[in-house]
Amino acid sequence: MADTNIASGATYAPTAKAEKVVEPGEFNFAAAFLDHGHIYGQVNGLRDAGGTLKWVYDPDPAKVTAFLEKNPEAQVADSYFQLLEDPAIQLVAAAAVPSERAGVGFQALEAGKDYFTDKSPFTTLEQLATARTKVAETGRRYMVYFSERLHNEGAMKAGALIANGAVGRVLQVVNLAPHRLSKGIRPDWFFQKEKYGGIITDIGSHQFEQFLSYTGAKDATVNFARVANFNNPDTPGLEDFGEASLTADNGASFYCRMDWFTPDGSPVWGDGRTFVVGTEGSIEVRKYMDLARKALDSVVFLVNGEKEQEFQCQGNTGFPFFGELILDCLNRTENAMTQEHAFKAAELSMKAQLLAETQ
Amino acid sequence: MADTNIASGATYAPTAKAEKVVEPGEFNFAAAFLDHGHIYGQVNGLRDAGGTLKWVYDPDPAKVTAFLEKNPEAQVADSYFQLLEDPAIQLVAAAAVPSERAGVGFQALEAGKDYFTDKSPFTTLEQLATARTKVAETGRRYMVYFSERLHNEGAMKAGALIANGAVGRVLQVVNLAPHRLSKGIRPDWFFQKEKYGGIITDIGSHQFEQFLSYTGAKDATVNFARVANFNNPDTPGLEDFGEASLTADNGASFYCRMDWFTPDGSPVWGDGRTFVVGTEGSIEVRKYMDLARKALDSVVFLVNGEKEQEFQCQGNTGFPFFGELILDCLNRTENAMTQEHAFKAAELSMKAQLLAETQ
Repeated sequence: MADTNIASGATYAPTAKAEKVVEPGEFNFAAAFLDHGHIYGQVNGLRDAGGTLKWVYDPDPAKVTAFLEKNPEAQVADSYFQLLEDPAIQLVAAAAVPSERAGVGFQALEAGKDYFTDKSPFTTLEQLATARTKVAETGRRYMVYFSERLHNEGAMKAGALIANGAVGRVLQVVNLAPHRLSKGIRPDWFFQKEKYGGIITDIGSHQFEQFLSYTGAKDATVNFARVANFNNPDTPGLEDFGEASLTADNGASFYCRMDWFTPDGSPVWGDGRTFVVGTEGSIEVRKYMDLARKALDSVVFLVNGEKEQEFQCQGNTGFPFFGELILDCLNRTENAMTQEHAFKAAELSMKAQLLAETQ
Repeated sequence: MADTNIASGATYAPTAKAEKVVEPGEFNFAAAFLDHGHIYGQVNGLRDAGGTLKWVYDPDPAKVTAFLEKNPEAQVADSYFQLLEDPAIQLVAAAAVPSERAGVGFQALEAGKDYFTDKSPFTTLEQLATARTKVAETGRRYMVYFSERLHNEGAMKAGALIANGAVGRVLQVVNLAPHRLSKGIRPDWFFQKEKYGGIITDIGSHQFEQFLSYTGAKDATVNFARVANFNNPDTPGLEDFGEASLTADNGASFYCRMDWFTPDGSPVWGDGRTFVVGTEGSIEVRKYMDLARKALDSVVFLVNGEKEQEFQCQGNTGFPFFGELILDCLNRTENAMTQEHAFKAAELSMKAQLLAETQ
């Protein structure tokens, strides 16, 4: 692992040895709008899989300078339009302020580029509706960096086990997603709800994406959702707690809790967990640490009809999503993630957010 | 540990060295209606704390014979009335068929005895309403063996940590409560919903009791609840899955999942977990096992502002409830558990069950 600051989720950017699915120059991408540190993970993932980082753009020169320290191969664009006009660019990776992500993406789609945004991809259902239209019109992809699955080896291993039938039919997924607030290093928009969209829209979109992925569901009903500012009266725009309960179209149950209460004594930014109950077995994922025992770590536990098993995933499982995404862009396939899956995860998170705000 | 069959929850009966709060003969109790194996845990707890088991009664001689093998000191009563008529008896411990527990208890109360029933204490809100009246009329106690906290060392340790302010204000409790179905050893009533009351009434009452205990809440609103028979079509009266979301009167959040899907490969009947989020720290309880690492086990993890800590509770924490219960009965205090707390846990579980049945 390199370039990984495990203490802060805001700068958590995994990288790993990966099969390079293309030669240098065969898949060129740009990085633009560096507002969230996730852009580093997005770039790492694409580059690890063989992608070529050609351009970087941000209106803030300081962000560009910091980016170049870790990604010196990028050329600095003078404007977003400059990189959009480069016919060699296949995909734009971006981590803009959440409320701006749709607008940034629409420009990319209209310029004939695929788009790979940090989550959450939208902050309003109206943005999503427009995105569906734009994707249909342009034939381009609006993909999302759901890093809590796509860039987590335990989460990827759990998905592979489930796909292989290790737990039978999935009946329930529970996600517990604490995050470190790191209040001092957060930008202003982090505390402005109209900009980040609310905690379920934001962190929840990760969780809902995992739910859809592990259950194979295509849609779900939001049963209950709640948001709160429990303990941050000085930043009233911050929701420091959120929870939601869903029932999938295939009957599976989902519950998730999102919060900003990772204690300072935790060596990792969040002790994220996933629990999967199936007809034939159960899975637990300790995504980023093995509490009080080891950090960084990523471990999957499987209990089935015969025995308990523990899978050490850290450094072993890798991140196949990024190579699949590159190939999807080149071949116009949908192996990494379907467009509808990405949109549905965002849609459910925003619907749950809206329900929470009425309760 | 002795007399503990960890593979089956139905016969899970912890015992531990405990401070004896009374001398032999100072607190005499009877065991009656042995329908659920929890009666063994109830007797162990009371005896470990110094109580004297004087009588046993069950209409089924086979159950009495089995009971005497582990509790040879008990005299066999010919009828329930015989032991109720003994003025030396302070308390009746019972684990009747759930739908019969209230009736058994009312007879005990009317005979001037305190009552200590296996959970769930009721199967209908009408039984609870009558119990409130009977308790007020007789001045006797209707106490409940919520074994998943009272007879679990990790759960007791977590409560002690919370009471000492280890996590600050409790914001949320999540309980995951898988149980082994052990279909072959279950009695007929286990599959008849009118007799066991539904999975939230039954297993859920444990979880709600922990929620009230850890949050200090006096009441709560049920936000959402669901029950299902996911995978047992041959026993349609069985609910093999249940979940519920609550908000406490002090704002705390609670979610729990109950199920009968512990895989056969698990060495323990259920990998029960509790997660507590507080303003100043977080707790995880691995109640009965350390998945894929150690069984039997009971471990508490605490992360606060300074560090991570792991507390090995198995064999260390003990079960102070039982001694406190004995002293409460003798001194007419409410240190072990208030009457209202026990009733409220049952009330919320039945309300959640009813809500689930309408959804």
